[in-house]
Amino acid sequence: MPKTIDPYGAELPEDYTKVIKDFGLEEFKVEAFPSPNRLMRRGVIFSGRDLKRISDCIKDKKPFYVLSGIMPTNDKIHFGNKQVVENIRYFQEQGATAYILIADLEAAAARGVTLEEGKKRALEFHIPAYIALGLHPEKTIFYFQSENKDVVHMAYEFAQKITLNEFKAIYGSADPGRIMSAVTQVGDILYPQLATRMPGIIPVGIDQDPHIRLTRDIVNRTKAKKFVPPSSIYHKYTPSLNGELKMSKSMPESCIVLPEDIKTATKKIKRALTGGRETVDIQKEKGGEPEKCMVFELDKQHLIEDDKELQDIYDRCKKGDLLCGECKDIACQKMEEFMTHLEKGIEKARKQVDKLNFVKFS
Amino acid sequence: MPKTIDPYGAELPEDYTKVIKDFGLEEFKVEAFPSPNRLMRRGVIFSGRDLKRISDCIKDKKPFYVLSGIMPTNDKIHFGNKQVVENIRYFQEQGATAYILIADLEAAAARGVTLEEGKKRALEFHIPAYIALGLHPEKTIFYFQSENKDVVHMAYEFAQKITLNEFKAIYGSADPGRIMSAVTQVGDILYPQLATRMPGIIPVGIDQDPHIRLTRDIVNRTKAKKFVPPSSIYHKYTPSLNGELKMSKSMPESCIVLPEDIKTATKKIKRALTGGRETVDIQKEKGGEPEKCMVFELDKQHLIEDDKELQDIYDRCKKGDLLCGECKDIACQKMEEFMTHLEKGIEKARKQVDKLNFVKFS
Repeated sequence: MPKTIDPYGAELPEDYTKVIKDFGLEEFKVEAFPSPNRLMRRGVIFSGRDLKRISDCIKDKKPFYVLSGIMPTNDKIHFGNKQVVENIRYFQEQGATAYILIADLEAAAARGVTLEEGKKRALEFHIPAYIALGLHPEKTIFYFQSENKDVVHMAYEFAQKITLNEFKAIYGSADPGRIMSAVTQVGDILYPQLATRMPGIIPVGIDQDPHIRLTRDIVNRTKAKKFVPPSSIYHKYTPSLNGELKMSKSMPESCIVLPEDIKTATKKIKRALTGGRETVDIQKEKGGEPEKCMVFELDKQHLIEDDKELQDIYDRCKKGDLLCGECKDIACQKMEEFMTHLEKGIEKARKQVDKLNFVKFS
Repeated sequence: MPKTIDPYGAELPEDYTKVIKDFGLEEFKVEAFPSPNRLMRRGVIFSGRDLKRISDCIKDKKPFYVLSGIMPTNDKIHFGNKQVVENIRYFQEQGATAYILIADLEAAAARGVTLEEGKKRALEFHIPAYIALGLHPEKTIFYFQSENKDVVHMAYEFAQKITLNEFKAIYGSADPGRIMSAVTQVGDILYPQLATRMPGIIPVGIDQDPHIRLTRDIVNRTKAKKFVPPSSIYHKYTPSLNGELKMSKSMPESCIVLPEDIKTATKKIKRALTGGRETVDIQKEKGGEPEKCMVFELDKQHLIEDDKELQDIYDRCKKGDLLCGECKDIACQKMEEFMTHLEKGIEKARKQVDKLNFVKFS
């Protein structure tokens, strides 16, 4: 492991326990959270920061918020976004006010997506997709980064509070564009507290921890304890279907995007790395290795909601009863159901977009 | 000379010719500009960049702009601001559209002046003072940086176009706050060209050349020649009254601020470094040295408009006819007239602020 986690890198951490230790994270204790969601129950959520602050809010019914951002750069999202949405939904159900910001300013700066195009994409695809994935449409506050002067003003203020060396220590490197993007994200993360100082939780992949650390460092040096340092919760990556890296659009053959044509998705699943043995006979005798199987990982993280059903697949694989072909067919069937549900959900949510709660800025 | 000019330093360049050479500036040729102002005629304006582009606009009556910013950090300005305003006025009279931005975002970030306070100060003092110093109230377009989303969006975009090493090469150092401030200034400098691509001239002290260079570098790598690289014009510093550094509020005894109580200003002028000799007798015999005299510098740069009147003071000093006491009395008298005029002008302009041409942002 390098000393810094690169938010822009593609590698999978070999050992999440080591990540927890190296970066001073807390282990996620599922028993501290009521009615844990699938990702929590199955250890996909593996760590966080300041989690007690949030479990206390849930227990004591005190106000807190959950926040995430959408980068409207293209017309697909990925399973990492799905994990984030499921966690947002979880905290919404536990009483959090949810904020979703559209990072159109960053998309414009870093990816050349004009603000108009970014706004259009977010309204036509990303926001409907998030709702289709479970985001509560009425209980969520949305805003466009480019319209939110408060966030920009905070970004300018926060930039004054860090040195280049601190930035490099957190991010491993520093360039002007990255610096501006990072301090803007700090502004986003703290924005809900401008109105009311309160705890907040940011559900992210571990690659986003630098932003959390930067935010917490900056909060700790602002005067008069204006902000509560944000808490965070980290999910493991969905690995690429060949098991080599985290799933990423840069390796399209090993990546299923959302939504994806089911034929294409099926083809990819059929080629995925499994925990199967050299031959059918050996597998029938020794059983498969679901721990090493990318199809089982998909089932576990995304496709099979029911714990018993998942356990059954695991047990039958271990016993050598369920072979890879049949198991892949099950996964493909589940994937088809999921994609159909997602596409219908997007279609439906698209019609409700004008009823959503967007922050109005003067 | 260091390889970079520090926009935040206090030292006077020993040799402006060397500055021109070291930084690849053009010498300012007064004959290229019609009806040159006092600063131009007297060599206080000593250099620039891409000056022909501007003298051509004047000659051919083509559109161009002149732009400067106000940092609303306190309730005083200095003689450097006066030089800038006089140059803006000059180019306004030669056909330029003038833009004055209020750098409230930077003032908030770097100096902790809230946006409300910055706005109030600019409206109650800085803008009226600029008008009192000669800015044409009806021919000037004003905007507040914090309200100008276009400038902020450009800043984000431009940050992507430079590396940390380029920034360091231009500024000598780099920290996150300075980087954000610099790319925002680039946005300000180019903002008038969003509507119409045209040449622009930025009148500044030589310490601000890094911003000009950064802007020109960024323009040269934007696609499709979207912007004309800005021209610039540099004035020599008003030296501190003890002749040691550039005049600065950090050395209050050697600095006259605008406006300043005339008694205080008089006291400071009386103590200024002059070109006087060891004794009155020697001075009567050898004459004084106006080239080394801070009072003469004040006369030349700021207090005496009429060239013949200034020449007369110079000649009488050189001949030993005009001694330092009398000469200081003349300067104090001029300073009193100037301050009275300035204060009355501010008072008058303050009442017209609501009639000015502020850019409205949606």
